[in-house]
Amino acid sequence: MLRAGWLPLVPEVNPDTIARHQGLIANPNCAAIIIAVPLRPPHRRNRIQRIIAATYQAAPAPEAAMQELRAWTAAYLSGQDYPPRVMAHPYAFNLFSHDTRVDPLTGYNDEETKVMQEIRKIMRDPEIRIGVICIRVPVLRAHSIALRVTFDGPITPAELRDVLATALGVRVVDDVAANHVPIPREAAGQDEVLVGRIRTDVSDPSGCSIAMFVAGDQLLKGAALNAVQIAEILVSRG
Amino acid sequence: MLRAGWLPLVPEVNPDTIARHQGLIANPNCAAIIIAVPLRPPHRRNRIQRIIAATYQAAPAPEAAMQELRAWTAAYLSGQDYPPRVMAHPYAFNLFSHDTRVDPLTGYNDEETKVMQEIRKIMRDPEIRIGVICIRVPVLRAHSIALRVTFDGPITPAELRDVLATALGVRVVDDVAANHVPIPREAAGQDEVLVGRIRTDVSDPSGCSIAMFVAGDQLLKGAALNAVQIAEILVSRG
Repeated sequence: MLRAGWLPLVPEVNPDTIARHQGLIANPNCAAIIIAVPLRPPHRRNRIQRIIAATYQAAPAPEAAMQELRAWTAAYLSGQDYPPRVMAHPYAFNLFSHDTRVDPLTGYNDEETKVMQEIRKIMRDPEIRIGVICIRVPVLRAHSIALRVTFDGPITPAELRDVLATALGVRVVDDVAANHVPIPREAAGQDEVLVGRIRTDVSDPSGCSIAMFVAGDQLLKGAALNAVQIAEILVSRG
Repeated sequence: MLRAGWLPLVPEVNPDTIARHQGLIANPNCAAIIIAVPLRPPHRRNRIQRIIAATYQAAPAPEAAMQELRAWTAAYLSGQDYPPRVMAHPYAFNLFSHDTRVDPLTGYNDEETKVMQEIRKIMRDPEIRIGVICIRVPVLRAHSIALRVTFDGPITPAELRDVLATALGVRVVDDVAANHVPIPREAAGQDEVLVGRIRTDVSDPSGCSIAMFVAGDQLLKGAALNAVQIAEILVSRG
């Protein structure tokens, strides 16, 4: 959980706030970072009202979890059982809801609640309405996220691509003819969040909603790189 | 593509239509079936206006594709390259957008277009607004789908659970305390679509939207079983 008084920030999104902030700065949740980095630039031009996200999250960060995914899969392929140590569910060729505690009142788990709260803090807009589902998939590295975003006014995919073309920390990968769009294997090891499948959300006739698919390295931009970037700003203001 | 005059139908949803229909009946797309089976019963009581879906689709049905996922993963685990034969992208511990052709005008691929069209046909309601993204995950069997559904009027998770408790072809698996919700490994081999993570969509303040997560066997209910059930109705009317 985010401690009171700590502010989760992302250098591409909040450079000025980091440079001025006198309190404690936290490294945000990795899924929240990967959602906020590509959405903050368009939000400055055409306010975002609503974000709907479904995550495809890679194995948890500890090496033990990634090792368990590999070991479980190897055991499965050779027809053997694997005794789970780190994960709550069989992980070989399987997926499952994030295993943090589910709030019995809201039905949202702690990971989802954290992602929703932190996106509003990073985006500096407490009014954004957000609904997230967090799912673990048997991927070794990089989180992917399916997004539907509703803006205050109409927006075309071309307009969004124009904004993202110059956005910090973002790379548009959206070659429709070649079907080359963000995939976690290509996001792994990259500093940038990959953004593609950018298209009008046909379920919203107002023309204010865009669907997209993003992928980002949860260990790099989602954690270590972001912390280093925060530290660099703090040192430079020293 | 759906041929003109063919009607995609699902026995749990359309038993009367199947029994009366004089034209050709098609087995619908497997993802469309898995979405329509749990949504048709609540739709009869509180009309569905909008469906937003993000799929987590298992390996394609041909045994060659499942074999390729296994072989690719085994090669990866032993540090070797794998020459792709069936799939367009590396499949070991990776995921990717469905590899059907993307329409350059709409940005939707053929699988997504088919799912959206067939859900409206199965649900017998051309007015439902639907936005789908179809993603392949490295799962051997059973499709999972994150859904957000907006009804004509307010609905609570408890009301939806009540409707689903008696719905044909559906099993509610939603033990919040144990975090036991639908997972593909448990849906594989089952006739029923598993439904869980049923909660109010907090991004819609009207109280008319519900979020949920479903999993169904794409080879069984999504294909062979559905065809057998259609045949049984056709034979019994004979």
